[in-house]
Amino acid sequence: MSLGNEVEPFRAAVHEAVDRLVGHWRALADERLPVTRPGRAPGATVAALPALPPEQGEPLDRILQDTWDTVVPGLVHWQHPAFLAYYPTGNSPASVLAELVTAGLGVQGMMWTTGPAATELEQVVTDWLAQALGLPGHFLHTSGNGGGVIQDSASSAVLVAVVAALHRASRGRWRDLGTEGRYRLYRTDQANSCVAKAARVAGLGESTVVPTLPGTARMDPRALRERLAADRAAGGVPAIVVATVGTTGTCAVDPLADIGRICREEGVWLHVDAAYAGPAALCPEFRWLNDGVGAADSYAVNAHKWMRTGTPCNVMWTSDRRSLTEAMSVSPPYLRNEASDTGAVVDYRDWQIPLGRPMRALKLWYVMRAHGLQGLREAIRHDVRMAALLAELVAAEAGFHLVTHRLGLVVFRLDTDPRTREVARSLAGDPALLLSSSTVDGRPVLRAALGSPLLTEATVHRVWRTIRRHAAPGGPTASEVEVDDDRRVV
Amino acid sequence: MSLGNEVEPFRAAVHEAVDRLVGHWRALADERLPVTRPGRAPGATVAALPALPPEQGEPLDRILQDTWDTVVPGLVHWQHPAFLAYYPTGNSPASVLAELVTAGLGVQGMMWTTGPAATELEQVVTDWLAQALGLPGHFLHTSGNGGGVIQDSASSAVLVAVVAALHRASRGRWRDLGTEGRYRLYRTDQANSCVAKAARVAGLGESTVVPTLPGTARMDPRALRERLAADRAAGGVPAIVVATVGTTGTCAVDPLADIGRICREEGVWLHVDAAYAGPAALCPEFRWLNDGVGAADSYAVNAHKWMRTGTPCNVMWTSDRRSLTEAMSVSPPYLRNEASDTGAVVDYRDWQIPLGRPMRALKLWYVMRAHGLQGLREAIRHDVRMAALLAELVAAEAGFHLVTHRLGLVVFRLDTDPRTREVARSLAGDPALLLSSSTVDGRPVLRAALGSPLLTEATVHRVWRTIRRHAAPGGPTASEVEVDDDRRVV
Repeated sequence: MSLGNEVEPFRAAVHEAVDRLVGHWRALADERLPVTRPGRAPGATVAALPALPPEQGEPLDRILQDTWDTVVPGLVHWQHPAFLAYYPTGNSPASVLAELVTAGLGVQGMMWTTGPAATELEQVVTDWLAQALGLPGHFLHTSGNGGGVIQDSASSAVLVAVVAALHRASRGRWRDLGTEGRYRLYRTDQANSCVAKAARVAGLGESTVVPTLPGTARMDPRALRERLAADRAAGGVPAIVVATVGTTGTCAVDPLADIGRICREEGVWLHVDAAYAGPAALCPEFRWLNDGVGAADSYAVNAHKWMRTGTPCNVMWTSDRRSLTEAMSVSPPYLRNEASDTGAVVDYRDWQIPLGRPMRALKLWYVMRAHGLQGLREAIRHDVRMAALLAELVAAEAGFHLVTHRLGLVVFRLDTDPRTREVARSLAGDPALLLSSSTVDGRPVLRAALGSPLLTEATVHRVWRTIRRHAAPGGPTASEVEVDDDRRVV
Repeated sequence: MSLGNEVEPFRAAVHEAVDRLVGHWRALADERLPVTRPGRAPGATVAALPALPPEQGEPLDRILQDTWDTVVPGLVHWQHPAFLAYYPTGNSPASVLAELVTAGLGVQGMMWTTGPAATELEQVVTDWLAQALGLPGHFLHTSGNGGGVIQDSASSAVLVAVVAALHRASRGRWRDLGTEGRYRLYRTDQANSCVAKAARVAGLGESTVVPTLPGTARMDPRALRERLAADRAAGGVPAIVVATVGTTGTCAVDPLADIGRICREEGVWLHVDAAYAGPAALCPEFRWLNDGVGAADSYAVNAHKWMRTGTPCNVMWTSDRRSLTEAMSVSPPYLRNEASDTGAVVDYRDWQIPLGRPMRALKLWYVMRAHGLQGLREAIRHDVRMAALLAELVAAEAGFHLVTHRLGLVVFRLDTDPRTREVARSLAGDPALLLSSSTVDGRPVLRAALGSPLLTEATVHRVWRTIRRHAAPGGPTASEVEVDDDRRVV
């Protein structure tokens, strides 16, 4: 950077950006901004921007102004208190601060030798979090055979687990010869879409879908055992089972202890995708979620879902780090170095799909320190209370049916399927809140995941009033869907 | 965020962080900080940190202080002007500002509907960059069949290309049945390690290594044709060729036009990995690098290497977006939405491995606008001049041999291999600069990639004096390797 000219405009722009962001957060907290703008047609942002980049540089303050004029109004505000779709994406001032510092330091942490403190900080914070979640000691770096790594997503964690499992199941043969279509992945139809995607990306094609226990969305262990036996009989090699702690559809929790026992007996890798629900185990009262996790070979949570940490921040642990690193290590001469050759250090490039990586640990370190375990637990308990409140309101209302309610997720429907679809459609046109539409057991449902860092009890009541209004005969009145034009905010 | 208590400490911490970062950059620019601390033993950072996370939250200013006390001294400073290892990781104030704003907005852009402006901005900036690089029009979103996407790394871009190529080569069969070990990837031994890794991760096992033209590090098109024919004769299905524009070893450029012609004739996907050298095509005088790229099915550059953009920011284009999205789309009910169902929008989740993603485009938009094309070109030309200067100094020095010099890369050796190894070892112990050791044609070499945003002519002369001193009889004197203790800076 030609620091002479660039420093003062940068300092001023950062000051301005933080003021704009604080104003934005306040507007979200006060619900002066809509969650989304349902009427916005595809192409509006494209049309608002020039077709070619500028030849000459432009001042940072003009770019900030354009951000708020052109980009912000076209976003869906995931941090809005009434953003209840999918699962939340966490955030906090500490997380945002860490992104600033990480970007400013500009370090690439692919190997220990390219940023020793970046690597070691990641070892420390993943060990911190493993202990805070009550995970077994063999997931810690200090165990010697295990350890944690920060991935960009639960998707990447699953793919890494699949690659490691294939390596182990084939005794390294896969690494040279490929999958040959014989290796199998097992999941339920409730597993996140990223699991089926990982099986495809890893060259396995379609994965084997294990039935769920009747009347639940939980994997049936007996059915798993049958599928494994059937595949073996047909010449297949069961490589990996992916169980879920907190499914996307209904926050169901697979029976880890039973599944883990089968995987141990059968010599099959068990990966546990606890992307959403996993962080709840920070609270002793929710630690049961991980009962049986001791038999897992790998386990992953999205700190960026429910731990006040901005996306991306998935934390993955394994008890068998050799399978990861042996599967993925490729060492051309320009990456060879003394520290790696001795085996005394962790080279995170071999724990993930990409070669390069930013310094990922600073953000989690900032968040865990700024909130402390108490703060993180309080945030989870708050959301769980808010979800319980919404569930109560739904359950008490004539014409509404609570389908399921666990942790921060509330799934409900109306009397009839056409009514549910009709209300879902009506709600989708309301900028003041955002729910997901989905299906459970083939029936349409509405799905509210409570977890915005700005969520309050007042939001829940307002959301509930809005939902009832859309369900009322004749649909919503206009009065409560008014929101400020966000161009006016800060 | 309980905005009441968190806003003012956050604002103050951001102000403090930007002051610390500016101080850090100045210390790097003035070379008051070392690039690295070669003597630091593995475990030093682990030992300096507590084994458990705090129960209570801590103030942000204490965390910042600890960052500079504990983490920064243990980093390798990739932004240091004398960081000459691997390839550079770019940065600029505009890029850092964008990371702050992106983190603060906290939007997840997996589908158009989850952040319309995030998606459309990415369509616009990737079209901007394609045009600025002189790429063919079929790589633009406006073409209808093509378009650009921001990945986290060149590794991920290659893997996505492999997945799309397998889909196309198998007419979708791969998606259901897996790879069955018959599909083949072709590369030279000079391709980045991520190419071999992608072949493994995608279930292909070892890739086919195509010989290079004698005396060069460039793929031999005739040998490629022979390998394709041999594999077909043996029942294999050639799926993808990965060519490189700017290899990691010597910045060699594969003959794209010849390779592309063969790929077209043979119906094989051509991916071009231009991670390092690609951005040079912003300058008309380097546009020859991409001669023949019109026949490629996908092409990727790392904006985070040579475009003043912080990591991660890989930009990948394809002329066949349907193969990407058909290969990777998995649509459970909770992700279904009207906009996606109409096919009128881009859903970037189907252009990448992970489901979730941050708003990736803001950073590239800020960088392209803040510098303008002129500024980005000037930065590349500056680095090319600096490399030419170093190459001249090397070539003129008795006992040194220039092995290769292209763009910002200078590769050299000493009279004998033992001498090269000895000087490499001596330089590795010097905190004032960082080069890579590698091998070319089996002989050890030293490798300097010039591209730190803080690089000046004075740095080049200082680096050269240091190298000469290490090569002098008796090794370096102590006087010039002194650097401040970085704990004292800011």
